[in-house]
Amino acid sequence: MATVPVIALLGGGQLGRMFIENALRYGHVVHVLDPDPKAPCAGIAHRFVVGDLTDRETVVRFGAAADIIGIEIEQVNVDGLEDLKQLGKRVVPAPHVLRTIQDKGLQKQFYVQHGIPTAPFALVNGIEEIRAASRLLPAFLKTRTGGYDGKGVMRVDDPASTDLFEGPCMLEQCVDIALELAVLVVRDDNGVQVTYDSVEMVFDPVLNLVDHLQAPARIPAETAAHARALADRVANAFGEPGLYAVEMFLTRSGELLVNETAPRAHNSGHHTIEACASSQFDQLLRCYMQWPLGDTRLRSLAAMVNLVGSGGTGQPMLMGAEEVLALPGTFPHLYGKAETRSGRKMGHVTVMAQDQQTLELAIHTVREQCRVVPATTSAHAK
Amino acid sequence: MATVPVIALLGGGQLGRMFIENALRYGHVVHVLDPDPKAPCAGIAHRFVVGDLTDRETVVRFGAAADIIGIEIEQVNVDGLEDLKQLGKRVVPAPHVLRTIQDKGLQKQFYVQHGIPTAPFALVNGIEEIRAASRLLPAFLKTRTGGYDGKGVMRVDDPASTDLFEGPCMLEQCVDIALELAVLVVRDDNGVQVTYDSVEMVFDPVLNLVDHLQAPARIPAETAAHARALADRVANAFGEPGLYAVEMFLTRSGELLVNETAPRAHNSGHHTIEACASSQFDQLLRCYMQWPLGDTRLRSLAAMVNLVGSGGTGQPMLMGAEEVLALPGTFPHLYGKAETRSGRKMGHVTVMAQDQQTLELAIHTVREQCRVVPATTSAHAK
Repeated sequence: MATVPVIALLGGGQLGRMFIENALRYGHVVHVLDPDPKAPCAGIAHRFVVGDLTDRETVVRFGAAADIIGIEIEQVNVDGLEDLKQLGKRVVPAPHVLRTIQDKGLQKQFYVQHGIPTAPFALVNGIEEIRAASRLLPAFLKTRTGGYDGKGVMRVDDPASTDLFEGPCMLEQCVDIALELAVLVVRDDNGVQVTYDSVEMVFDPVLNLVDHLQAPARIPAETAAHARALADRVANAFGEPGLYAVEMFLTRSGELLVNETAPRAHNSGHHTIEACASSQFDQLLRCYMQWPLGDTRLRSLAAMVNLVGSGGTGQPMLMGAEEVLALPGTFPHLYGKAETRSGRKMGHVTVMAQDQQTLELAIHTVREQCRVVPATTSAHAK
Repeated sequence: MATVPVIALLGGGQLGRMFIENALRYGHVVHVLDPDPKAPCAGIAHRFVVGDLTDRETVVRFGAAADIIGIEIEQVNVDGLEDLKQLGKRVVPAPHVLRTIQDKGLQKQFYVQHGIPTAPFALVNGIEEIRAASRLLPAFLKTRTGGYDGKGVMRVDDPASTDLFEGPCMLEQCVDIALELAVLVVRDDNGVQVTYDSVEMVFDPVLNLVDHLQAPARIPAETAAHARALADRVANAFGEPGLYAVEMFLTRSGELLVNETAPRAHNSGHHTIEACASSQFDQLLRCYMQWPLGDTRLRSLAAMVNLVGSGGTGQPMLMGAEEVLALPGTFPHLYGKAETRSGRKMGHVTVMAQDQQTLELAIHTVREQCRVVPATTSAHAK
């Protein structure tokens, strides 16, 4: 190309910020659209526009100034992305892929149509249809659109339950989960795909957020190979260039079931920033630019521990950095959010080690020592 | 500390930019002062101030808004730094260290006073004093202040030479150089010091810039140990916290002589971004923050190839990214300079490999394929 292409990102949160952190190294120009003027990308994006990601006209006006349009959150206006594609822009992920993924119902049907194993489900609308599908209970009731990080999800055990979600939902049979896994796949324009090692997720039962993850997942080699092959099949089924984070369940019977796919950088890939030569954010840039895909090999065992705000509201400050940085191979990340709140995801720490024991000791140290607290109350918090 | 400290950098070039690229991950607030409104740090610094680094009042006014003041270039007003220290600011490097290093004459005397081996020299002012020191010829005549990247340096072979630098200079005897090495040392407030592996510099004879460097240097183990010990002694002699890039000559007789020291991040440490767990920029942040120093071990062989502008003036564009990124373990860096010019240092590529042959192949590919050219003339340049 005869000029340096401009990349426009829909969403200015931590995923966008980490994308920019890597893109800066290539001297790239990145524009960001986000409704929050204090979003993590504000101040580091070359152009930061405050606006509604779900408004078609806003998305089109924003993207029209760029060559490549990407996303860091699914809740964006897909019609606007279609319009931008019509204008000859490079849009990753392809709008039709995002449209399918935005709707948990369409996404599940997509898996079934493509012979991709997933938990039994029914599309339901209102209490009557839920009861009609009671064969699936116990199950999870998920709003078809808009839910994330456990929001828009409820467990249903009793067919007589009354306080259920209204509107279009997906009722998904509970499966006997041994482990939750995620596999990142990157696909280029030629259909070349590379996958990362599967990662194992450990959830915080209270916040229902990923507490930490470990890579590679502690599963037998053939299960790991199966997980990567399954993720490969999912990306292949979508058949468009981009980054796909495929979340799956390993059942106690050893079955792998696809839960859902995110067509973007994902929380389960943050460790790749330090643990791999080419991180998920670097791969995304390579994909945008139609450059060759990067090396996905793990340099060592790695874990990613989320840093969640505690101690109230205020300017975020990282406590315990001294203790954590005293360990070799620990990498704190704060997302540059203007305000910390108890329970808010404020950052993460990646830990690398050559053996499991050292890794677990480091994870323990991070969990014990590292906290993001309001700067003003730090004295008490310590 | 009860609030998040603000870091103020004097200088907004590529060193500042790479510092910020790492500091962003910690959510840090970095202010930058630079005379050029289009400097590489403009647009990514939280606060970018255009101003004269050599003006005392400008430096003080700028630094007064921060808690920690650092530099990315030596040519700054040291009186201003002294004033900021008086105001209770943390200043790294210590002003008196910078004062010594800014003056090549004082710096050489410092080495002699501390028993640090360095090439024979004389402080001279004007043609008569140069002739009086003709015992040192052939020699290099260096202006005591303001020179960099080969500027302010001339070779003197003939005592009868007439077109010599005027004013305070340092005349340094030519030594029989087998290899130019650099060793990075980081020192914390407790006097703890860590060193990186020595790097070997290869110069471009035309531009007199580092063309590429290799780490570790291809020297015997005891020479490498000696080089690290010597760099340790230099940092110890300065005796203040900070990052010290110690450049040295290995003579054909196997002697190590200190050439000069930069009390800041240095071109010879760029490979540490990818080749080490803690880069020189990360160590500097740890030092500013009084955090524990990081892991300096090399993950593999590494080389750093400078990218110098060619093909004229214009918006910089990286050519050959596809070819280079097709190799595993290659990491292009563009410095975000607004304009490329033939011969201007625009970026670098770090290459990592497990063996020398693979490393050299990668270096060759970078040298052959990678060019920074004006975007508009890219078609012809290809």
